[in-house]
Amino acid sequence: MSDIRCIGIATGGGDAPGLNAVIRAATKAAILKYKWKVIGIPDGFDGLIWPEKSFELTLDKVSGILPRGGTILGTTNRGNPFKYKTEENGKEVTRDISDQVIANAAKLGIDAIITIGGDGSQKIGLELFQKGVKIVGVPKTIDNDLSATELTFGFDTAIHTVTDAIDKIHTTAASHHRVFVIEVMGRDCGWIALAAGIAGGAHVILIPEIPFSIKAICESIAEREKLGKHFTIVVVAEGIKLPQELKQMSRGWPVGNTIGDAIGLFSNKEVRVSVLGHIQRGGSPSPYDRVLATRFGVAAVDLLAEGAFGKMVALRAASIVAVDIARAIGHLKTVDPDGELVSTARAVGIGFGD
Amino acid sequence: MSDIRCIGIATGGGDAPGLNAVIRAATKAAILKYKWKVIGIPDGFDGLIWPEKSFELTLDKVSGILPRGGTILGTTNRGNPFKYKTEENGKEVTRDISDQVIANAAKLGIDAIITIGGDGSQKIGLELFQKGVKIVGVPKTIDNDLSATELTFGFDTAIHTVTDAIDKIHTTAASHHRVFVIEVMGRDCGWIALAAGIAGGAHVILIPEIPFSIKAICESIAEREKLGKHFTIVVVAEGIKLPQELKQMSRGWPVGNTIGDAIGLFSNKEVRVSVLGHIQRGGSPSPYDRVLATRFGVAAVDLLAEGAFGKMVALRAASIVAVDIARAIGHLKTVDPDGELVSTARAVGIGFGD
Amino acid sequence: MSDIRCIGIATGGGDAPGLNAVIRAATKAAILKYKWKVIGIPDGFDGLIWPEKSFELTLDKVSGILPRGGTILGTTNRGNPFKYKTEENGKEVTRDISDQVIANAAKLGIDAIITIGGDGSQKIGLELFQKGVKIVGVPKTIDNDLSATELTFGFDTAIHTVTDAIDKIHTTAASHHRVFVIEVMGRDCGWIALAAGIAGGAHVILIPEIPFSIKAICESIAEREKLGKHFTIVVVAEGIKLPQELKQMSRGWPVGNTIGDAIGLFSNKEVRVSVLGHIQRGGSPSPYDRVLATRFGVAAVDLLAEGAFGKMVALRAASIVAVDIARAIGHLKTVDPDGELVSTARAVGIGFGD
Amino acid sequence: MSDIRCIGIATGGGDAPGLNAVIRAATKAAILKYKWKVIGIPDGFDGLIWPEKSFELTLDKVSGILPRGGTILGTTNRGNPFKYKTEENGKEVTRDISDQVIANAAKLGIDAIITIGGDGSQKIGLELFQKGVKIVGVPKTIDNDLSATELTFGFDTAIHTVTDAIDKIHTTAASHHRVFVIEVMGRDCGWIALAAGIAGGAHVILIPEIPFSIKAICESIAEREKLGKHFTIVVVAEGIKLPQELKQMSRGWPVGNTIGDAIGLFSNKEVRVSVLGHIQRGGSPSPYDRVLATRFGVAAVDLLAEGAFGKMVALRAASIVAVDIARAIGHLKTVDPDGELVSTARAVGIGFGD
Repeated sequence: MSDIRCIGIATGGGDAPGLNAVIRAATKAAILKYKWKVIGIPDGFDGLIWPEKSFELTLDKVSGILPRGGTILGTTNRGNPFKYKTEENGKEVTRDISDQVIANAAKLGIDAIITIGGDGSQKIGLELFQKGVKIVGVPKTIDNDLSATELTFGFDTAIHTVTDAIDKIHTTAASHHRVFVIEVMGRDCGWIALAAGIAGGAHVILIPEIPFSIKAICESIAEREKLGKHFTIVVVAEGIKLPQELKQMSRGWPVGNTIGDAIGLFSNKEVRVSVLGHIQRGGSPSPYDRVLATRFGVAAVDLLAEGAFGKMVALRAASIVAVDIARAIGHLKTVDPDGELVSTARAVGIGFGD
Repeated sequence: MSDIRCIGIATGGGDAPGLNAVIRAATKAAILKYKWKVIGIPDGFDGLIWPEKSFELTLDKVSGILPRGGTILGTTNRGNPFKYKTEENGKEVTRDISDQVIANAAKLGIDAIITIGGDGSQKIGLELFQKGVKIVGVPKTIDNDLSATELTFGFDTAIHTVTDAIDKIHTTAASHHRVFVIEVMGRDCGWIALAAGIAGGAHVILIPEIPFSIKAICESIAEREKLGKHFTIVVVAEGIKLPQELKQMSRGWPVGNTIGDAIGLFSNKEVRVSVLGHIQRGGSPSPYDRVLATRFGVAAVDLLAEGAFGKMVALRAASIVAVDIARAIGHLKTVDPDGELVSTARAVGIGFGD
Repeated sequence: MSDIRCIGIATGGGDAPGLNAVIRAATKAAILKYKWKVIGIPDGFDGLIWPEKSFELTLDKVSGILPRGGTILGTTNRGNPFKYKTEENGKEVTRDISDQVIANAAKLGIDAIITIGGDGSQKIGLELFQKGVKIVGVPKTIDNDLSATELTFGFDTAIHTVTDAIDKIHTTAASHHRVFVIEVMGRDCGWIALAAGIAGGAHVILIPEIPFSIKAICESIAEREKLGKHFTIVVVAEGIKLPQELKQMSRGWPVGNTIGDAIGLFSNKEVRVSVLGHIQRGGSPSPYDRVLATRFGVAAVDLLAEGAFGKMVALRAASIVAVDIARAIGHLKTVDPDGELVSTARAVGIGFGD
Repeated sequence: MSDIRCIGIATGGGDAPGLNAVIRAATKAAILKYKWKVIGIPDGFDGLIWPEKSFELTLDKVSGILPRGGTILGTTNRGNPFKYKTEENGKEVTRDISDQVIANAAKLGIDAIITIGGDGSQKIGLELFQKGVKIVGVPKTIDNDLSATELTFGFDTAIHTVTDAIDKIHTTAASHHRVFVIEVMGRDCGWIALAAGIAGGAHVILIPEIPFSIKAICESIAEREKLGKHFTIVVVAEGIKLPQELKQMSRGWPVGNTIGDAIGLFSNKEVRVSVLGHIQRGGSPSPYDRVLATRFGVAAVDLLAEGAFGKMVALRAASIVAVDIARAIGHLKTVDPDGELVSTARAVGIGFGD
């Protein structure tokens, strides 16, 4: 058992429902199970760059935050201590201030740190670990594109938000005999588009993993017309690669708009486009995400207690396991175009524009 | 009492949650209370242009549609029988086919018609009434901008959808210290922006009725920063008039994006923009909208039974009343910049960019 | 204009979604618009009995509470200062400690008080006003049974919760060919049962205002069977008066269970009973309730500023008005059995067991 | 590949959100992927006892049912063809009418059957399989207590409904300083209570797998009081075994009421009880349940196509697998009192009354 008396918790990267649930679970477990003190490190690692910003996380501070979106610690996409951007003599320079960060953590009495964040945050955690800091990571990616874990918190809530939007648009599309294009998150992977597309009863799903053509999409629309279905719902992941012929149509708009324009041009249908954007990262976490986030938070504290540093918690076969951060990061989990989920979608008549 | 034996029901214009609830209530009241037959006229008045498309609305046909968005009759924004666009000798021409429409209604055995729709549909209804058709109107406007009625169905549901989106974005904005601009519906009036802005705890609301400047918005943001609030939520009605200096920034994008760009330019804050779009017109109607739509549907049938043709149902002081369609249409209900709702918003610290 | 510098806010009686929204709006308006100090009086009037429990309500304290159910001030159904129950020499005695409460308010620097609560709390407010305290009331009744105001906050949210439950039960009832009895709130009046029953598509609604018989209910069920509808949803207000023959069946259980037992006995249908209970008083307030609560909170502060003491805010014809507390309390707003809402329900086929 | 040309689909047992999603997916896959005809067998196996009740499931019939609770096929808990209860000469007798059922299936042209249902339905399916019928099963249990599959559809939606109720009650409990007892489903196992209890932030969870005492519960309540938390939320699975001393307190009421009475008796707290009941079985299936149900439906059709009869689909390590019905049924998956989920709950301070 490790000789920890005080831990720090930091959240980094984009928002995801469940961050507060992880903070709460880790704080409660640290205090109640191990009698540790807990320090909240605000805004990524900013609270270690300016240690006066850091503050104690008590049971009272985490009371009531389980059902709330966002993070009470704040977060940022900047502030990598190993590549810290600052201004010197009027010029922007990049400095490694990790020694200062480590010293500040010590000054705050922090013996070990839980870093809750995406690939970027985990990489910082790994580098700190390699410099001797006791680190355990909790993975966070709304896109669910991390190969080390079957699922991350926030994804289920995002699927809810998207499915709810598709449900809403469904009846309007049907009543108006229109084509609706709905752009959802998924920079590199189509998980959100695929899962929410199946759940929402979409008719065409475009994901980065499957090349598509407007011609094939318009054929799907035409086939539906023949069946007396005068509307079509197309779910588009933001990360799809536009075919060459569409690139010139894009005017810096979201990719969903370009797809919508192209469908309008090549079919005789009225098209409407909806870019869901940031509502996918917010909201009260779903029960699934609350439970998963709670399990992750407790497991991270348990790993610290066991002295299993440099590890990241992950979900595999419904169990929480620990994986090496070093091995976990940088491996994208993409949708298998020949896998069961895509073939299930095809079996219920969903097209992929291919 | 009128000698009606069969009525037709038509829905026109944009989608609004509660259309099906009106159809159901009118159909049930007509059949159960008056023993009338009911004909569904699909796609606006298309079902009277091509009468073979029309079909009987039975109790079975309207069973289960109360909680559903959209309209089982379909709808369209085109197809005005008085200005019917058709092609003759390869040229688009506009014809008055109202006589044919009236003849088709007679052929279908329709003695009277309930038109559920916006200003455009009510105007068609009025003109048909002036040609002798027994018409009663049910108002529909998601924007709630009709002066003849205190409220229309669909508005409450839209407010729900927008408030839910603001709630979701709130925690992300707070966690990331960002400015979020949320564009909502409201072509001529700011009712959705104002009500949902108050309900969602927005900090700045921009509506067509109140001129604004980017400078004032940025001052609101700066004031919040001074209070330690490093995020600001700006709700923007789609119908706001851009100040001259912003017009050149617009690139054909939604107005919310232009506001977002301008705030980003004139403040030192990161800005994100969310254009909510069509999800505001969809979804299961809220209980309030279901009840109001049911009351409207029953009242419309009662008016037909009383022989009160050329009337439109409306809500005033919590009661259903009948108003002349002729007087009801064309009168916009705008937000009073000096009224109680705006001053309530100001009292809780909401700015209007003025 | 009154010479107020500091106000107190108290919440009393049962829970209702929107209490926090009133507290927030009143606090913000007092601080931002009038530069007053605000004191939160916890747990009804307990904070004036034990003044050390009271605390300052700052902008920070009310930040983020708009969408939350409950009241940050706490509440209680006991603690009437005019009939304060205490123990003296081992016996429970009732004392008038209102002078002490008034003295404590003065000691806390409170110049005027906003009392948010039901009939009981308003009566206490009135008696304090009659002893010279500057009081303004905000009405609160989940049942919406106060004749002085068209609507109160919390009611719309309760209707949502009940409608959502009816929606959920609808599909199960239909799939299983069962009768479902759903007991909802409404001690003296049937507003919740009536509004949610219409919104949820109930088939029979029992309310205190309309006498009913099991025989008539079973006839409604049998008629539906004839139409091929093998399920029936019966919504029951908790406050219905049981017919003589049913009183002996009641075993101290909720009234909904007795109705369910009786239907099971007198029809050949399987019956299930659901008593919704306290979930009807909780949850995030609906947008409508948030806006109404905000308007009430601001209006109460404005009334204090105008020196209009002894008044209660109310909603009439979509406007906020002030009414005398003395005239407002004790007048129940019951459902009119011959009114438009009941006849609308009948027109769409809903029975009332009469 | 099997020489199937027509399949039947039956749903049996209690309601669970996602049944319609399975029916839709299986019907679409059968028609679109395999060009089979599909027959809907209504009300458990009743549609094979009275074959005239059965009807063809077309693409149109399953259109729009994905988001709806219940089952369009209807369901029943009775009607086991091997133990069919009927009346002969005024006496109830039990007959094996399976031969007649099999003959009727053949008469309808049904080559194979998908049985969607709980243990009871799967057992009937197995016995039909053993008599030569081509059967594939889809597991259904709202309680998620089947050891053969990690998850079943409906469970996630039930967790949502319960968590939503706990969220609603949380603020009321906190505002009123009360103890709330919430009884949830779980006849033999505590999965719903445990998952929703963690997700809802409950303080005490009582499940059939962990013996408890009222004394320990009251100690948990007292400890919370010491921490200034004057409310406690107790989630109780309906299937808990009452300790001897409590059995006499039960008056035939739901178990949650007995627990509530006992807590009220042995602590000095006001207690309220909420028995959630059938709303847990209804509602639009959550996105997770819609996807899982769709995967199950397609996989069941694929198994029929492969000739893998007598199998049941199941979820293991995020993949769909096939298990022998014979081995799958009758094995309860109980909560491990020493497992990770219970210890996670304990780590965040949840008590189990032990």
